[in-house]
Formats: sequence, C-alpha cells, structure tokens
Amino acid sequence: MPSAEILTVGTELLLGHVLDTNSQFLSEGLARLGIDCYYHSTVGDNEERIKSSIRQALLRSDIVLISGGLGPTPDDLTMHCIGALLGEELIMDSDVLNGIEHFFRERGMLMPPGNAKQALRPAGAELLANPDGTAPGIIWRIGPELMQRLQSAHGAENVNRTSTLITFPGVPSELKTMWNQTVSGYLERNLVKSTIFSIELKHYGIGESALAEKYASLLHGSNPTVAPYAGRGECRLRVTAKAENIDTARSLAEPLIKEIRAGSGHLLYGIDDDSLESVTARMLRDRGLTVSVAESCTGGLVSKRLTDIAGSSSYISLNMVTYSNEAKRTMLGVEQSILDQYGAVSPECVKAMAEGVRARTNSDIGLAISGVAGPDGGTHDKPVGTVYFGLATEGRYFAHKRLLGTKYPRKEIRYRSANEALNMIRLYLLNVLV
Amino acid sequence: MPSAEILTVGTELLLGHVLDTNSQFLSEGLARLGIDCYYHSTVGDNEERIKSSIRQALLRSDIVLISGGLGPTPDDLTMHCIGALLGEELIMDSDVLNGIEHFFRERGMLMPPGNAKQALRPAGAELLANPDGTAPGIIWRIGPELMQRLQSAHGAENVNRTSTLITFPGVPSELKTMWNQTVSGYLERNLVKSTIFSIELKHYGIGESALAEKYASLLHGSNPTVAPYAGRGECRLRVTAKAENIDTARSLAEPLIKEIRAGSGHLLYGIDDDSLESVTARMLRDRGLTVSVAESCTGGLVSKRLTDIAGSSSYISLNMVTYSNEAKRTMLGVEQSILDQYGAVSPECVKAMAEGVRARTNSDIGLAISGVAGPDGGTHDKPVGTVYFGLATEGRYFAHKRLLGTKYPRKEIRYRSANEALNMIRLYLLNVLV
Repeated sequence: MPSAEILTVGTELLLGHVLDTNSQFLSEGLARLGIDCYYHSTVGDNEERIKSSIRQALLRSDIVLISGGLGPTPDDLTMHCIGALLGEELIMDSDVLNGIEHFFRERGMLMPPGNAKQALRPAGAELLANPDGTAPGIIWRIGPELMQRLQSAHGAENVNRTSTLITFPGVPSELKTMWNQTVSGYLERNLVKSTIFSIELKHYGIGESALAEKYASLLHGSNPTVAPYAGRGECRLRVTAKAENIDTARSLAEPLIKEIRAGSGHLLYGIDDDSLESVTARMLRDRGLTVSVAESCTGGLVSKRLTDIAGSSSYISLNMVTYSNEAKRTMLGVEQSILDQYGAVSPECVKAMAEGVRARTNSDIGLAISGVAGPDGGTHDKPVGTVYFGLATEGRYFAHKRLLGTKYPRKEIRYRSANEALNMIRLYLLNVLV
Repeated sequence: MPSAEILTVGTELLLGHVLDTNSQFLSEGLARLGIDCYYHSTVGDNEERIKSSIRQALLRSDIVLISGGLGPTPDDLTMHCIGALLGEELIMDSDVLNGIEHFFRERGMLMPPGNAKQALRPAGAELLANPDGTAPGIIWRIGPELMQRLQSAHGAENVNRTSTLITFPGVPSELKTMWNQTVSGYLERNLVKSTIFSIELKHYGIGESALAEKYASLLHGSNPTVAPYAGRGECRLRVTAKAENIDTARSLAEPLIKEIRAGSGHLLYGIDDDSLESVTARMLRDRGLTVSVAESCTGGLVSKRLTDIAGSSSYISLNMVTYSNEAKRTMLGVEQSILDQYGAVSPECVKAMAEGVRARTNSDIGLAISGVAGPDGGTHDKPVGTVYFGLATEGRYFAHKRLLGTKYPRKEIRYRSANEALNMIRLYLLNVLV
C-alpha cells in the first residue's frame, strides 16, 4: 500500500489562532481507504519553509496532501512554491479564471485582481474542482523524472518512483467537499490495491463505554475491525473490512453488521452520513406526517436542524420559538395558571406547549421543549441542564425529562437537548415511545 | 528571539481518531510569549520516525515541545527515543517512582509494572512535574557538545548552540496544567526577551481580497504585522506587535488599529471573540430594544444564533419559522393576494412578514427572511441562493436582497443568509441602513 502524509500551510495555525481540523478529517479518509499516513506537518506562510516541507514530504511519501495557502492574498504561496520547487511553470487556466469571474459576477461584484492567481497551476497537474469556493486544487502525479530532478537538486537519496501531490484550500467545508466528491474516489481507483469496505453504525441513547462493553468481543479483530467513537451525545461503531474487491470486503463485514443491528435495535439510528434530523425527516416524509415544534430553551435549533434537510416543507408548516411567557400564552394557549403554578420549565408547561402548537398548526405531531440552558437561571430544584420535552399526537401525549448536568456550556446543552427532541420524534415513529 | 516547534506523537492522531488540540494550545502559549513557532509535526508510535522527527526538530529550532508517548504501554516510546538519539542513559528517579506508586495506592490499586518506566529520564534532564497524572515530563537544555554529537552522527550542517527540549504527556488537561504552572514561566524567565500584543479586527460586508487591497500598505510590516483571514462570509485582520513589555507592544499596535477602525467604519463589527450575533445582542440589550424574527428559508437559524447568547430573553419574546404559505397567512397576516401575485420568495412577501411579526409581538424590530436555499426550488428569475430580507420598525421599512450564488450547498446558503439578517439588525442599530 502507498504511504501518505499531510501538510497544512498557514501562519494562523502556528499562532494557534485556528485549530487544524483538516489533518484529522483527511487522516480519517486515508485510513478508510487503507492508506497509511505517517506524518502530519504544519508550516507558516514562508516560501523557504513551505518549499522544504513539500520537498521532504515528496521524498518520503507516495501521496502528499496539502491544505491551505491557495487564497488570493500575497501570503498565499502554496502553488507558487510547488511550481518553483519542481521547476514547473504555472499556467493560467482560462476556464477556471472565467469560473472565478462568474462567481463574483453572480454576486454583483467585480473579481478583485488578486483572485486571478487562483486559476494558476503547474503545467503537468490536473485540476481539482472546488464546487464551494474560488480556489481549486490540483492532483499531480509527479513522474520519476521530476522526482529525480527534485532529489538531485537537494542531494537526497536515490528515488525512482512516482509521487502524487494533491492540494486543497484551507477552508474546511471546501476541503471536505473536494475530498468526498473527487479525491477519495481518485485515490481508491488509482493508488489503492486492496479495497476497503467501511460503514459507520450510528447509535443514540447509549454511552461509549457501554457500547464498547456490549461489543467487547468484536473490538479485537483485525479484518474486519470494529472501532467505537463518541462525540456530542452520540456513539458510532465503525466496521472496516479489507479485501481485493469491494464485494468480498463487504461480505466480510456483513455478519458483524448484522450482529450489531440485531444487538442494538432502536439504539442504532442510522449509518454513515445519516443524522438524527435526516433519519427523522425521512421517516416523516415516508409516512406523510407533519410536525410542528414549539421551542423555548433551544431557541430555534430543533427547527433549524429539521429544516437543514432539503424538502423539509413537506413535513413542516410552522415552528415557533416562544421565549417569553407572554408568547407561550398568546401564541400557544398556555394558561396563565400553569405558568404561575409550575413555571415555564415544567412538565405541565411543555404539555400545554406541545398540545397548543399541534392544535394551532393542525399537525400530526406537536413537540415542545422547555429547559434551563444556562449559564444563569438554574435553581435548586431545576439546575442548569434540566430540560423537559413533550410530544402530543391525536389523543396521546408523551412526557420526557433529561438532566444534562451543569458541566456543559450553554451551546452544548442546547445541542444535546435538540438531539433528545429529534430522537423523541424518531422513537415515536418507531412505536417505542412509552 | 528563539524559534520553537511542536511535535505530537501518537498513531491515534495519524488515524484521525483523535483531534490534536495540544499543538494549538501550545502555539497560543508560545505566541503570547513572543516566541516564533515555525513548525508543527505529528508522528506515530514508531521508533525510527520519532527519532528522525526529534533530530530534525532539534537541529532547526531552539525550543522543541513534544507531546505524547509518555504512557505506560510498550508503544509509548518518546523517552526511550530521546535517550537513544542523544546517546544519554535513562536513569530511574526514585522520588518519581514513589509518587507513581502512591498515585495508585491512593486509588486502592497496585501500580501496574508498565508504569515504572514513567520514572525514567535522561541523566542531564530536569524533571517537569505533572500534578494531574502519572507521567512527568522533562525540561532539558541540551548543550553545544551534545548538539554537535547529534549533528555529526547524522551529517547535518554545523550547529554550535543550545537547544531546549520539553516533553508533555498527550492528555490535554495534564499538558495544560504543566504549561501553565511550569513551562510558560520557565521559558519566559530563561529564553524570552519580548512580549506579544495581538488583536483580531472582525469585518463583515467586505471580501478578503478587497480588504487586503484596502490595507495593502499595512500587510508588509514586520512589527506590527497585519494579516487577513477569511471564512464563511466574514473577514478578519489580525494585528500583532512585539516589544519588551505588553504596554509597549500595545502602543506599537494602536496607531494601526486606529487607522483600520477609521478606514473600515461599520464594516468592522467587532474584535477577538465577538460574533455577529453577540455584537447585535449587546446592542439590542444596551438600547433596551426587542426583536422578533419570521424565518422561512433559514428555518430557525437566525433565532438559534440570536439565542445562543446568554440573556437573550431580554430582547426576544417570540420568533416564528413560517415555512408554509398557510403559516405565513394565518400566523403573520400575509395576504393571499401577495402570495398569489409575487410568491413567497419576494420583496412584497418579506415586507408583509416583517410587518406582520412585528405587529403580532409588539416588538421594536420585525425581521423577515425568505429565499431559495436549494438544492431545489430555483427558477430562472429566482435561482438558488436568492434571498430577500425585510426589517420593519415603527413607521419605517428597509428591504434588502442578496444573490448568494448557486455554488454553495444548502447549509452554507442558510448560514450566510443568517449572517446577512444579523448584520441587517446591526446596521439598523448603527443608523446606517438605507
């Protein structure tokens, strides 16, 4: 198998102003392809150091992934350094240039002159399209001749091989799209001899150590491998199998996937790119059901996540963020006596909110959330992190309460509350809510 | 000033299982001391690669910070590699060994045999205590004699200097404590001659290249330095000054900050940790004004971002996500004739939405957003990325339209639309909206 390394470019990384998440993302992708990554390096916007880092990487690794330094400003040096290091002229790609000009025109602007250099690339390199921004990357298979020129110019040991150099802009969302849409497939087709089948089994409602214990017997295999990951209230099990072709790899993984599916039941909510919102949205659409949400402490986050999914207008008509007691009363019909007697953060209030939002919108499902997101507003009885949920349907009502603890910041409490709310809809649609 | 670099050790980093946050933390600390950090590197648990990475780092930097590889298992190799590379024997520190034994005894356990090696360090190195865990680090001033031995053994160029090597365990909380309690002060006392003042000036409404052109004359200074960064529709200028103390450093930076403040006017929305939502929230609170939002294509994101800020109940009572035409009609009072004649994505509809949400909530400001977030729903006249905004106040109305282009995915169009909406409130409060 080929070896790889990752080089990130940008003084902002060395100053600690920006956390490098690109190296982790690319490393995960390489690992999924079964490519060994031996080094990460970061270097600032300095011509000599960028060149020596790229040279070192090309001489010791078969695949070099570079992120950053493709912007329009004078300190964006990556493409210039690649050309200078390998003695290749940079040529202007007029299609790319037109695309950049179009990008600005579409927004009613003229292209600033600095952006023109984003259309430059070494004569021998292929274009790596960037669907989300103005800076494309390159994929360059550097042949033995150029590699030998590189080494002899620097007195390195004898190298007689090809190296593949791929550049990405530093913007994480653009890099991710380019990896997912182009680079991963390119590497798989051209450089990977064995094929990897890999699937992520996403769980909600069970912790990492409980999940690891449940499947302890599976965690020590070498092919397939099973590895647990956790983050922000969810847990994932990644099953990875390696074989000479994808069908064999998949058939190696399948018995384990079946075992985990059977063992996890409704704790397994989806796979790979699924999210709690996308799974819930799909179920709502498939069943032709509608939902309305009345949010207090989550402030619109549940609504935002449900509408992140394209086509959400088929299952959502109206959501409300009723922050004040007055809004709860006038817009949802929560009675003043409930607010007086139990307060806005109470099982009684979310019940009235859920039933109120459902009635006012004629939806199949009414969902309400009210809690203390902090940092202030906690009391002895209802500390920060106390969140009530209610789900009302025709003739039925389900109540739920979570104590998310005081150790999370406001954002995290809101995010995890939204997880719970989305999962509550999912469990209702699965008929397991009691 | 001395130069530094950071080396993190651990195969889990190269597999992408763990995000490296230690490099960022240490970089921020170095920058605060005014020490230039020129490289980050990451290497796996492999003896040869660890040794060659440490060698390279010692030969090119005055200070080398290493994190990871100090644990008790066989793949924890950092201390062994340091000793082997520099030809120094590792000696057992009996006080440290007693400390580790005590650590386990306190928890009712016997020390596992593997942990004994955590008490080893090179004869010439000082102990770097770890108050939070079992693995201490070292601070080692490696003199010219050892450095020359290191270089001549590897045919490097002539080096006649001292290098300081410092090791930390990979556990972020332990590393942070050790940096804060010991290392930062050690470096300041022994190696630093100057201090850094740094500020980020955050802009909205101007692109990176336009900003770089506007301040082109400032971008090439060496002290203070000014560097532009961009991401997700905003732009930042970082001004950094170095001097022997913080007051002198600040006074070096101040004329530039003043120049940028004057030149950018309302394009500069905040500094450092400010966000569009936190700045807007602060202005609303300071003026005692309330806002209500009626969202269509952003689906709750504006509401979510406005309520990310603690204390948001003082300026928000109710927000609505009116996705369907019916909701726009019944909840906001948008007339059917407007929907029929102009459609839901139109200047006429957002005006009715903004005025409707304001009237129904008795707020000072009513804000509405309606657009095509995609990927479907675009037409020739209103392609994906077309977004209308309306802001209604007592007796006044402001309209705004943005073409965000078809290049961005749905999530990005929604995020950037929310930026525009928040900025529109901000500009209104600054009295510059026309």
